[in-house]
Amino acid sequence: MSGDTITWLNGQQTHHLPLPDRAVDFGDGLFETLLLKHGEPLYLERHLARLRRGAQSLYFPAEANQLVAKTIDLAKRDIAATSWPWTALRVTLSRGAGPRGYAPPIECEPRCLASATRLERNPLEIAEPARIGMASIRWPTQPALAGLKHLNRLEQVLAAREYRLQSLDEALMLDQDGNVVSVTAGNLFAVIKGEIITPKLEQAGLRGTRRECLMDDWAPALGKMVSEVTLRQAELERAEEVFFTNTLVGLRPVGAMNNMRWKQSSTCQALHRCYLDSVS
Amino acid sequence: MSGDTITWLNGQQTHHLPLPDRAVDFGDGLFETLLLKHGEPLYLERHLARLRRGAQSLYFPAEANQLVAKTIDLAKRDIAATSWPWTALRVTLSRGAGPRGYAPPIECEPRCLASATRLERNPLEIAEPARIGMASIRWPTQPALAGLKHLNRLEQVLAAREYRLQSLDEALMLDQDGNVVSVTAGNLFAVIKGEIITPKLEQAGLRGTRRECLMDDWAPALGKMVSEVTLRQAELERAEEVFFTNTLVGLRPVGAMNNMRWKQSSTCQALHRCYLDSVS
Repeated sequence: MSGDTITWLNGQQTHHLPLPDRAVDFGDGLFETLLLKHGEPLYLERHLARLRRGAQSLYFPAEANQLVAKTIDLAKRDIAATSWPWTALRVTLSRGAGPRGYAPPIECEPRCLASATRLERNPLEIAEPARIGMASIRWPTQPALAGLKHLNRLEQVLAAREYRLQSLDEALMLDQDGNVVSVTAGNLFAVIKGEIITPKLEQAGLRGTRRECLMDDWAPALGKMVSEVTLRQAELERAEEVFFTNTLVGLRPVGAMNNMRWKQSSTCQALHRCYLDSVS
Repeated sequence: MSGDTITWLNGQQTHHLPLPDRAVDFGDGLFETLLLKHGEPLYLERHLARLRRGAQSLYFPAEANQLVAKTIDLAKRDIAATSWPWTALRVTLSRGAGPRGYAPPIECEPRCLASATRLERNPLEIAEPARIGMASIRWPTQPALAGLKHLNRLEQVLAAREYRLQSLDEALMLDQDGNVVSVTAGNLFAVIKGEIITPKLEQAGLRGTRRECLMDDWAPALGKMVSEVTLRQAELERAEEVFFTNTLVGLRPVGAMNNMRWKQSSTCQALHRCYLDSVS
């Protein structure tokens, strides 16, 4: 442990990754970011399910899933020994070592890295409306990997760099056709004439666990259904509300982007109360 | 050194990478694979130029380029102390450590990993015609990063896994529109009615150093120019020759893909002689 971070490799605390490792070489792996309340992960099953889908898509051996579950268990134990009220736990699943070249070894031994960071802010308090920018880089078109939380994340890195330099809170990311996909670290929703809509994620983007929660549980609790649509930029302008979801943020309204303003956040606030109910 | 591999971090021999590292977390970095003859890299300037272009596109600080040059110098020294006739040197430039989240730190300290592997085969001997497959995964569409050798390489990993399981030598990779881009680890060329053509790489793919050599030097030495085209799969079928380039392979003819056969390799052989002339 160093200050407010703990790092593990296959459940052992360490600060080093043995080389070679295919996560370093090719981004050959997956990750999850979990929110822990007094050491207990929220929505753990949804995170594990997404990771299982990813591991299957990348042809990781089935043991990888047990390795992740075991790593999270050991991390929970160590985090419980701290007095951290809220923790972000990043879990990274790498295909492990391998010889030179793109082809993975037939018999690979996946590795599970984990890194826990104490959160200062209470993540259940809804944040003030975000001021967001428009990312100049767009999501790649890749239906074979869309939705998965794999380690190939350069577009989001470059988009996040940009909004930080502009002192903004987030950035809207478009697909290659110029349609709206998400923010860099969250799924986007808009309310248009009372209807909640969110971009389809078949060609690009990442299926967030909180997006699933919102669609499966929180919106239905309000008697609403969410439609997955092709969302044009112009439609955002006529939306009553825009907000995004993210594991560590929960739900956050968007207040402004360039010359657009959204004053309302009543749907976001109501969904946030459903979120609070589900985790209390 | 362990057997026939040596690994360095910032010029120091090591087998460990300190965590966190953004290459692991997001594929936030670049790489090059160099071929060394008795410890001397071939076409070093082309590799460094591509890495500089990549580092600029990812907004790495300018010092990153010096770090790479220094790392290669130190690796050369250690490799020269071995008796390896031929070495593959992979150089990986990571953005280094960083706090949680996609946004890179404003002041980052890039790291340069290097890994040298002794090659058994003389890479100047032209290999037998390759039997290749058709990858079921396609290149992502991403004009902002196309051409660069960054660390987000999941598509090539999955395509390489597939051809290995089929006991083939390589696999053809298409773009999202179904046009031909490359093989998993090399640039593709076809000869149609005596003309050498190669896919444009504006939306997808990787600009290989040997592709540059072929277009700038080897083909002109034969009095030929190479045209960059949108290459349809059907056109491959009527090509007299198909071949690919790669740092470690040089040039290699393609003999067969599915039910297609290419008997000729005279252009590939002639270009290979230009290659040999340029490195002898």
